[in-house]
Formats: sequence, C-alpha cells, structure tokens
Amino acid sequence: MKIGIDLGGTTVGIGVVDENYRIVTAIERKTAGCRTPEELQKIVIDGTRNLIEENQLSKEQITFIGMGCPGEIDTEKGIAVGADNLPIENIPFAKLLSEAFDAPAKLDNDANCAAWGEYMAGVSKGCKNVVTVTLGTGIGGGIIVGGKLLHGKENHAGEIGHMVIDIHGKRCGCGRIGCWETVASTRALTQEVEHQAQYAPNSRLGKLIAANGGRANGKTLFTAMSEEDNMARSIFNDWIRSLEVGMWNVINIFRPDMIVISGGISKEGDNLLIPLRAAVGKCSTSIRAGRLGGQAGLIGAAALDEMNI
Amino acid sequence: MKIGIDLGGTTVGIGVVDENYRIVTAIERKTAGCRTPEELQKIVIDGTRNLIEENQLSKEQITFIGMGCPGEIDTEKGIAVGADNLPIENIPFAKLLSEAFDAPAKLDNDANCAAWGEYMAGVSKGCKNVVTVTLGTGIGGGIIVGGKLLHGKENHAGEIGHMVIDIHGKRCGCGRIGCWETVASTRALTQEVEHQAQYAPNSRLGKLIAANGGRANGKTLFTAMSEEDNMARSIFNDWIRSLEVGMWNVINIFRPDMIVISGGISKEGDNLLIPLRAAVGKCSTSIRAGRLGGQAGLIGAAALDEMNI
Repeated sequence: MKIGIDLGGTTVGIGVVDENYRIVTAIERKTAGCRTPEELQKIVIDGTRNLIEENQLSKEQITFIGMGCPGEIDTEKGIAVGADNLPIENIPFAKLLSEAFDAPAKLDNDANCAAWGEYMAGVSKGCKNVVTVTLGTGIGGGIIVGGKLLHGKENHAGEIGHMVIDIHGKRCGCGRIGCWETVASTRALTQEVEHQAQYAPNSRLGKLIAANGGRANGKTLFTAMSEEDNMARSIFNDWIRSLEVGMWNVINIFRPDMIVISGGISKEGDNLLIPLRAAVGKCSTSIRAGRLGGQAGLIGAAALDEMNI
Repeated sequence: MKIGIDLGGTTVGIGVVDENYRIVTAIERKTAGCRTPEELQKIVIDGTRNLIEENQLSKEQITFIGMGCPGEIDTEKGIAVGADNLPIENIPFAKLLSEAFDAPAKLDNDANCAAWGEYMAGVSKGCKNVVTVTLGTGIGGGIIVGGKLLHGKENHAGEIGHMVIDIHGKRCGCGRIGCWETVASTRALTQEVEHQAQYAPNSRLGKLIAANGGRANGKTLFTAMSEEDNMARSIFNDWIRSLEVGMWNVINIFRPDMIVISGGISKEGDNLLIPLRAAVGKCSTSIRAGRLGGQAGLIGAAALDEMNI
C-alpha cells in the first residue's frame, strides 16, 4: 500500500492507494485558515497518522508516501519552498513524512502529480509524451516526455499558462502582457461572461447571473448555452478560439501523443471537447479530458516512486 | 571514425569525424539544381564514396554513418519523406548508406542534428535540457530533454517558429496568424529593414541598402547600427523585443539549462546576445550562441548513434 497526499489551499486529501492505483480509503482535513508552517505540517502529519491508525496499517504495509503541493517545490530535497494560498516556508515534507512513518517519501508540484496520476492510471496511460493542461484560475501544465515529468531548472518548467499568445493583449498577474491564461483560463471566461452580461440583463445569461448574485461560475455559461442564449454561445466560441491558439502552440512545440484537459471545467466533457477539437482541426495529437477528476493529484502523488527523475 | 552528412538545398557536406567529434576531413557537393530523387541520392552516395576512397578508409574503420536532412523525416525507418527545396520523395537514405558502405546508418532532421552536435560537442555539452533556436528564413527548434532529442509524434515536435505570439498579427506561411517567425526570424528583420529604409533613402541604412541593389542582408543592419543610425537601432530593438517574447515562452514551458541561438545571425555574437539577454532579464536559463557554427549539423549527424531514442 502507498499513501498519497494532495495538499490544497482549502483542504488536504490523504488516501491509501493500492497496487492498481485505486484509492482504498481517504480522508480530508481543512487547510483553509491555517496560519503557520508548523500548523500546516501538523495537519498533514496528524491526518496521515489518523488514516494509518483508522485502517490499522502496519509500518511494513506502507511502502511509500507521496505528496503533491502547490507553489514552488524543491523536488530533490523534498521541500515545499513557498505558495500563494498557504503558509509554506521551506517545509521539508519528504523528510518529515519519512521520519514519522518510516517509509520513503517524495514531494512534487500538485499540477505535476495530477499529470502523473492520469499518466500512470488514467486517460494518458501508455502514452510516451503527454501535456496536461489544467484550466482554472490560471492555466497550469504538467509535461511528460519519454515517460518522465519535465521539471526544468529549479522545477520551473510547465508554466504554459504564461506563454504569451497576444503581445498586444491584457496585462497578466505575472507582469507580462498577453499570457495564454489572460484569455483562456476559466477565470478569464467567467470574467468575460460577467462583463458582457451587464449590458444584456434581460438575456437568459443576464438573468442566470442576476439570480446568482451577479456572479458567473462554470455552470452559468453552459446552462445559458443549453437554453440557446446567443450571447453565451458567442462568448464561448471566442474563448474556444483563444484556447485553441495555445493548444496549437503546445502541439507545434511537443507534438505529444495526447493533451489532457483537467480542472473543474473538464467535467463538461463533450460540451467542451467537441468544439475544442473542431477548432484545433485535423491533428495527430488527441485531446481528451482527464479520467480521474479530483483524484488525479492524490493518485499521482502515491505513484511518484515510480518515476525516475 | 564516423561519417557525418549534412544535406542542404544548396550543398551537401560530407565529413569524417573522429572520436572527439572533430571533423578530420570533409568535402562538399552541389545539390542546387538537382532535379530528381535518383540524382540526389547519387550525389550523396557518390560523394560519400569519394570521401572514403580519397582518405583510404577501410570498411572496418567506418563504425557509423549519420545524416541530417531538411524537411519531413521518418527517423524510425530512416527515410527522407519530403522537403521544400530538394527533390525528396521517400528516399530511404539510412538503408542506402548502410548497404553501400556496410555500416550502421541513421537519419534525422537537420535542425535536430545541429542541436545534437552542439549538445554532444559544442556549447551545450553537459546540459540536461536544451532548446536550440535556429534563426533564419524561419525559426527552427531542436529540443533536448533529459539528454534525448524530442521528436514527438511523426517527428513533428520542435516547430517553435510556429508558436503564435500575436493573435492579431501577420499571416504566416503555415496559414496561422502571428507565428513567432513572422516577427522574429531574420527574414522578418531584413524585410522590416527594407520596408522602413524606403522612407528614409538618405539615412545611413537607406544608403547601405541602395548600394546593395535595394536588398538588406544580415550585415546591413549591424553595419548601420555600428555607424549610429537611429532607424537601424530602432528596428533592431523592436526585433529584439519580438525575439524576447518567444524566448520567454520557451523558458516558461521548458525552463531549460540553456537556449542555444544558431543560424547565420548568431555569428554577430555579443551584438545580438547582450541586447537579447538584457531584454530577457534575470533568468536561470542561460542564452548562448552555438559554438560549432555551420559544422554543427555534420558533427551532430555523425553523433546520432549515441542517442537512444
């Protein structure tokens, strides 16, 4: 049995994963509101101990502990260096876990773990080269080349959301202009939906947003489209075009076997994939949605021992 | 001894390369004007035979023959599939060379061979991840990840010149809009120089171009800049900014140890590198010019046997 840990800004998921990469059992602990590195590492270690004790796992049964963590990671030393939404300051998680539970432990970036999970046990299993594109507040990337995660210098590879596609476009949070995520993230999409809906309060989209306190979310647009709202369809089509441009950049650079779309919006399945594939056109790279959903990160973390960096 | 062959649209270079990746001796044969695949393969095979005979090499002395070729390549089968500037139609070069000279033979893309040459024997030796950016009529890429060339599906990886950076920009020859090479190739630079010089015939740049029959070339701009022509400096600065945007995209995606600049303009050395590095700013990826110049492709071809695909 292996243990996978998926640390996020709201919760941490900790699970027991079997040799077929199935989650046997898992628990969740709250991380939102956590103030100090000491508090955060206590949540992780105590949670892991609870899980082990509840399931009466012996030391011998635990062969590996893998952990995915947001922000900057030193994979070689197994240290979480820092993150935006959590009080992380050089926490040596790999060492802490290894010492507490007497098993080898590894740490990697959460986006990498999700990509690795889909590669080891999900939709991209058996591929050689895969790029996982995570659509959310930003656009994250997990790049697998020749069966290995591409970490790059100081683990900074995979920042595909900060690939500039519009040098005359919008300012990005990173300081550059026209990064892919300024137009193709789901946040960019919902912002555009909220912006345009202001001018059409009587449209189906406008009413849905008004009913939701003036805010759009992932579902709003798809609901309005399913009710044949033209504005919603037009916003979606523009967004698909922005997404397609970056997709083709990834294809031209890597020509991977597969691009895996992950993030909450990937649950839309064919509503997203069919228009996106039509925009991309004929191509030897297949475009698929992740199969493991929110479990990809935990499963990928538990499988980190099977990667030779 | 190994033999390296670097096939181009004007000439083919064929050389004997020693165990230290030094070219012991080399010959050149004309390929411009060559009309049929049969004629082209005869030039390559006869040239290689001439080189072997002139140097009195025995069969036992030749341990490997590697060849770099423009256009589309089937590396697994060793077949040159097709190219724009040469009469190539599925020529099985690896098989032809292997049978004619009784040695193992391999074939790869010319840009990949140049990247591999610099990696095995040039400026990027000892790196783990390297992206070679070849600036010329277009922008080509040779990507090395974990010590291996990234070929991608159907050998289509590395098309970094067709990464869109300006979705509202110029139409590219590939059909897309705003590809990096539409603004940052040396052709884009000389076209801009010629265009702007029309409106300033009495500038230093205008006179240099008039003296050259109305055409700019790689040297014109640098000569005008060295003579403190402001228009030349302004065109160059704009070009450097376009180059920098794509460089940062490559850095954000791969965070390689090094980006190697190759192509004719890389001979400008610090005139190019210092402004480019200043534009890129602080970064853990170093930016260097290739060290092997025009020999990189031939040396890389001869070293293709040392790559495990």
